Amino acid sequence: MMTKQQLRQELYRIIFGTDTPAGQRFDMVLIYAILISVFAVMLGTVDSLSSKFFSVFFLVEWLFTGLFTLEYMVRIFCSPNRRKYLFSFYGIVDLVSIVPSYLGLLLAGAQYLLIIRLLRVLRVFRVLKMVRHMSEANVLIRSIVQARRKIFVFFTIVLVLSTLFGCLMYVVEGPGNGFSSIPKSIYWTIVTLTTVGYGDITPHTVLGQIISTLAMLTGYSIIAIPTGIITAELANEMQRDKSVYPCPNCVKAGHDMDATHCKWCGADLGNMRG
Amino acid sequence: MMTKQQLRQELYRIIFGTDTPAGQRFDMVLIYAILISVFAVMLGTVDSLSSKFFSVFFLVEWLFTGLFTLEYMVRIFCSPNRRKYLFSFYGIVDLVSIVPSYLGLLLAGAQYLLIIRLLRVLRVFRVLKMVRHMSEANVLIRSIVQARRKIFVFFTIVLVLSTLFGCLMYVVEGPGNGFSSIPKSIYWTIVTLTTVGYGDITPHTVLGQIISTLAMLTGYSIIAIPTGIITAELANEMQRDKSVYPCPNCVKAGHDMDATHCKWCGADLGNMRG
Amino acid sequence: MMTKQQLRQELYRIIFGTDTPAGQRFDMVLIYAILISVFAVMLGTVDSLSSKFFSVFFLVEWLFTGLFTLEYMVRIFCSPNRRKYLFSFYGIVDLVSIVPSYLGLLLAGAQYLLIIRLLRVLRVFRVLKMVRHMSEANVLIRSIVQARRKIFVFFTIVLVLSTLFGCLMYVVEGPGNGFSSIPKSIYWTIVTLTTVGYGDITPHTVLGQIISTLAMLTGYSIIAIPTGIITAELANEMQRDKSVYPCPNCVKAGHDMDATHCKWCGADLGNMRG
Amino acid sequence: MMTKQQLRQELYRIIFGTDTPAGQRFDMVLIYAILISVFAVMLGTVDSLSSKFFSVFFLVEWLFTGLFTLEYMVRIFCSPNRRKYLFSFYGIVDLVSIVPSYLGLLLAGAQYLLIIRLLRVLRVFRVLKMVRHMSEANVLIRSIVQARRKIFVFFTIVLVLSTLFGCLMYVVEGPGNGFSSIPKSIYWTIVTLTTVGYGDITPHTVLGQIISTLAMLTGYSIIAIPTGIITAELANEMQRDKSVYPCPNCVKAGHDMDATHCKWCGADLGNMRG
Repeated sequence: MMTKQQLRQELYRIIFGTDTPAGQRFDMVLIYAILISVFAVMLGTVDSLSSKFFSVFFLVEWLFTGLFTLEYMVRIFCSPNRRKYLFSFYGIVDLVSIVPSYLGLLLAGAQYLLIIRLLRVLRVFRVLKMVRHMSEANVLIRSIVQARRKIFVFFTIVLVLSTLFGCLMYVVEGPGNGFSSIPKSIYWTIVTLTTVGYGDITPHTVLGQIISTLAMLTGYSIIAIPTGIITAELANEMQRDKSVYPCPNCVKAGHDMDATHCKWCGADLGNMRG
Repeated sequence: MMTKQQLRQELYRIIFGTDTPAGQRFDMVLIYAILISVFAVMLGTVDSLSSKFFSVFFLVEWLFTGLFTLEYMVRIFCSPNRRKYLFSFYGIVDLVSIVPSYLGLLLAGAQYLLIIRLLRVLRVFRVLKMVRHMSEANVLIRSIVQARRKIFVFFTIVLVLSTLFGCLMYVVEGPGNGFSSIPKSIYWTIVTLTTVGYGDITPHTVLGQIISTLAMLTGYSIIAIPTGIITAELANEMQRDKSVYPCPNCVKAGHDMDATHCKWCGADLGNMRG
Repeated sequence: MMTKQQLRQELYRIIFGTDTPAGQRFDMVLIYAILISVFAVMLGTVDSLSSKFFSVFFLVEWLFTGLFTLEYMVRIFCSPNRRKYLFSFYGIVDLVSIVPSYLGLLLAGAQYLLIIRLLRVLRVFRVLKMVRHMSEANVLIRSIVQARRKIFVFFTIVLVLSTLFGCLMYVVEGPGNGFSSIPKSIYWTIVTLTTVGYGDITPHTVLGQIISTLAMLTGYSIIAIPTGIITAELANEMQRDKSVYPCPNCVKAGHDMDATHCKWCGADLGNMRG
Repeated sequence: MMTKQQLRQELYRIIFGTDTPAGQRFDMVLIYAILISVFAVMLGTVDSLSSKFFSVFFLVEWLFTGLFTLEYMVRIFCSPNRRKYLFSFYGIVDLVSIVPSYLGLLLAGAQYLLIIRLLRVLRVFRVLKMVRHMSEANVLIRSIVQARRKIFVFFTIVLVLSTLFGCLMYVVEGPGNGFSSIPKSIYWTIVTLTTVGYGDITPHTVLGQIISTLAMLTGYSIIAIPTGIITAELANEMQRDKSVYPCPNCVKAGHDMDATHCKWCGADLGNMRG
């Protein structure tokens, strides 16, 4: 028979690990459970469906709440460092995934409509449990992290531009044409600069239309900047992948494809690549 | 006189082949026939035209249906492997191009309006017969196929982001402002993130406008990611066109396609490529 | 005194040439004349302005018509090959710039409103005379011309996609929701795929919103393709500019920056670049 | 005790400099002061807030006006070249940041509503004082400046295209469908070409929809051009960051910034870079 310690280790390997067949099967089941439960929560907000299939949604909801509660408890049980797991990003997401269902029981009255809507939505954040299984996203995220300073500067420029254009439009068009305050004008400017263009607020004066034309052309040309930043960064990431052969002398990698000598210690690389 | 076998081979060369003048002429005629018939079907759905030129549309429809039926039969006749052709992508497209017209005859009553609309539209899928003649598209499709994993990850990120933003907007704006359910909020979020911005649903609360501003700026900056992925992939495809033949003297590669001498040691490359 | 032949040559150098101070001054005057006359025509279509400053617009119109008529005559007079000039692109643009004003005189009655509107607008095409003076545009145009096959393939793909999505939406949404015919559905699809999103036609059914979400994400990801094509082409154009040093032996240029031997004749390039 | 001269130098180092701890602390305080005062001005234009928290906005307004007045005076006092500072970009921005508040006192009557709105907005331009502290923006601005000729040519092409499309739409759709004048049609064309697509003006005739489809596809494909320009320029800027120091042994350059040995001959690069 298994001791408690062995059971914990075995469960840890299945639930937290991804290198055993059992661990991979568990991950697959979990992904489908997350997807189905998130879909159920989403469809449950559609009035025509929720009134018709009330009992189905109720059943699915409590089935998955039970399942995720079990998973949460087993994770706590088999985690080697419980405090660390409980306060980790995934630990909090796991907790947030189950608490709203139980809270919904306590607040069953009709007077807590808004809170119940909020709780129902919180359950959708289970989708973040998916991120654990998207190892591929790391490459993209790394590129963005690398370019974070430039992207931050870019957003600051966009915000300064939006403030200036928003103020101009507020003065030119005025509250009568929908530009009722500077924050609303800035909202309009960002809608325009990003080329979204809802059309809920549009310029009506000739001067306003000329200024908004300028804003569009500005947005059109600065839309290129983050593209340039990320493209350059991604190209870098990819080039970094190119030469993974380590130097035979100092075992450091990262040489250019056409290098004949190690750029770290000067040893000849030629023999290795020949 | 030609035997049946010779006729089949001759027809195969004309209809399936593209390397003889007759085959190329057949392809050109087919492309024009597809374009004209698709245009006719499309214009036939415009009420003012279809009532005025009813007999013209009727004539054109049956002329091309007859032609494509003949083509389908000849293709079956001369195909060396009939089963393979019948169940291939193009075989099914060829069948779908003619069946709806004949089905329309059987369902001539006014009570099958929706089905007739569907059949009418299915005929437009004749346009897929064109793909057979767009060999150039392969380069672009290859780039996309190469980047399919990263594009899939990108779409997953977009969907997770849309779910989170959609839920936030559902809680903040609520059914009163058009965000009547989470799926509808997610629809709105994708309309916003992709900078399409119909304006059929727009945020009305201050908090909703702040969140949608964040969604726009996010969309604005992640619009760069697939651009970066595909650009890098296309550049790779293009660089692959650079010669991989090594110099016979110094065994270094990477010469331009039009180089006649090695750019590293000056040796003659001509013999190798001749 | 100048002979007629000398006068023609002198005028030719001023009007057609750009290498003498007089020629450059003439070009500058012409650019301003075009800009002012185009602005006058454009502002003349604004009702509130045209009724108030009728005489000013009348005066400006005939002043520039006279000027451009004079220019056209002098160009004919001094052109060494008159027939070639008359039927060249610029010769036709020059003619179209003046004819509408004279035709407007003949059709002074109120019954030709549409024709007069057309003539008024034709005069704006004077702006094309500007192109003659934008030598810088060539670099960009060359990149687009280089990539024209790929761009054509791309547009064909966009049109095939639009046809398929448009037909799907026509079946799903139907005439009741604004998708009144297939051509109109295709118009909607292109508005969506290009992320313009007017919002004059929007999906109302759930299935229609799901399909339009797919269309948006497709548009979002294929927006990258022409960017990739043109970026790669522009990078090529720029790289071509990099190594302009000709080989000392065969005087051909276009070597890579890191080449040590001429890729055309094998001669050593090293001494030249130092 | 400090002499006046020493005080000026000390203040200069704190206010204009960024290399001492005191100077950096002063910059941080100033950035927060700018952000808070700009937020206060912006929120002060929201009617519901300004009527409720009138005294708070009044207080914040005069607190920061006092602070910025003090800052302006100290800057004048300690600047080594007063005339140069007063007429510099930042000197004028500093002045514009405080003058409107004082002018607002003089024009307290209700009859100057528009002017007061203008003055209130001018205060938001304090945000430009931020630019002083965004040294990182220089890299991006340098790329844009490098590409300014090509961007200018691009905008000219966009404007010529907009004029032609705008005129076509004016003729085809006419004043009855919202295209009331050529300038308005050009406004519509830019809204379409930049893929903003408000939807305040949309084509209603079949021909108009075909032309607008062409305009969208054109916009869709030329959106790539500035992206290509800026991406190429940014890549250049980044490559420039690669070392230009040649190897002391083989005099070849192009090493990575972190290389310690020449990647061509293996010689030690360390001494050169120190």
